[in-house]
Amino acid sequence: MSKNTGLNAIEMKFLRLSLGITPAQVAELSKSTEADVMAWETGEKPVLGLAAKKLLEIDEIIEMQVLNTCDGIEALFSKEPKRQLSFVVYSNQASYAQYNPEFVGSLPLSELYNTAAWRIKKECKLVLEVEVSLVALDVEAYKAYREKEGLKESREIRAKWAATQL
Amino acid sequence: MSKNTGLNAIEMKFLRLSLGITPAQVAELSKSTEADVMAWETGEKPVLGLAAKKLLEIDEIIEMQVLNTCDGIEALFSKEPKRQLSFVVYSNQASYAQYNPEFVGSLPLSELYNTAAWRIKKECKLVLEVEVSLVALDVEAYKAYREKEGLKESREIRAKWAATQL
Repeated sequence: MSKNTGLNAIEMKFLRLSLGITPAQVAELSKSTEADVMAWETGEKPVLGLAAKKLLEIDEIIEMQVLNTCDGIEALFSKEPKRQLSFVVYSNQASYAQYNPEFVGSLPLSELYNTAAWRIKKECKLVLEVEVSLVALDVEAYKAYREKEGLKESREIRAKWAATQL
Repeated sequence: MSKNTGLNAIEMKFLRLSLGITPAQVAELSKSTEADVMAWETGEKPVLGLAAKKLLEIDEIIEMQVLNTCDGIEALFSKEPKRQLSFVVYSNQASYAQYNPEFVGSLPLSELYNTAAWRIKKECKLVLEVEVSLVALDVEAYKAYREKEGLKESREIRAKWAATQL
């Protein structure tokens, strides 16, 4: 990887921080060790080009998702005047993988999905003046809600449950 | 602080992560303890409204700086065709406070300044197609450069040194 297209130590560190993940998670994503990641970030070892590329790709996927979701929300609010919205996020990997498996391929960690959600919240407020609340899925409370209302599990029902949490 | 304007646990956590700072640093910024910050982020205690406000203000300052800097860079490149630029960042608090004291009031931690720099790099690439490299100030190398060239310390000379590091 040429010097100009790669990332240097401090760039790699702040890219990782902006994604909300740990050195151990970068190691997992790039099939390296945590010690390697620390060495890249302190400049002891040159940053592995493939690892930088992986994180940049993820950042791009998140930015695309922010754009697409905000477009969707804008379309929604062209019909409804409601200016408050809830967005389900996942406080651990198990619930993320169970309830949101379609994202695990592109955003493998719940932290990456939540980072996208945070950016969506910011962008919606700034650009659309829509207040988005991130609602961490409470698996037990969600199950109880579905049982009480006799509802099957789906993205829509999750969103409905989240709206009851505002 | 009303429920709607405040941040909940997971929002507070991902705001902190997006700023690239630790729970201990949030504690420092909000005159709380690290244990408090952890309790806010896990939902054990309600998020202190003043702490959320402080982080949101910092995030806004960073976004303003991104806008202003990118505007400046755009103006610069309307005259010069050069599409590569270096931007000095600070790998520790001591060099940040010594060389960039005018920012310490609004962005008290070097990590916050570097987070701003990372967002500037991203925005410049996306919007202006300008490649910005973050160059961590190497105090010794910078001093040696100034001595050799007979230059006084200033923002401009720092930028000049950084350009030699590309």
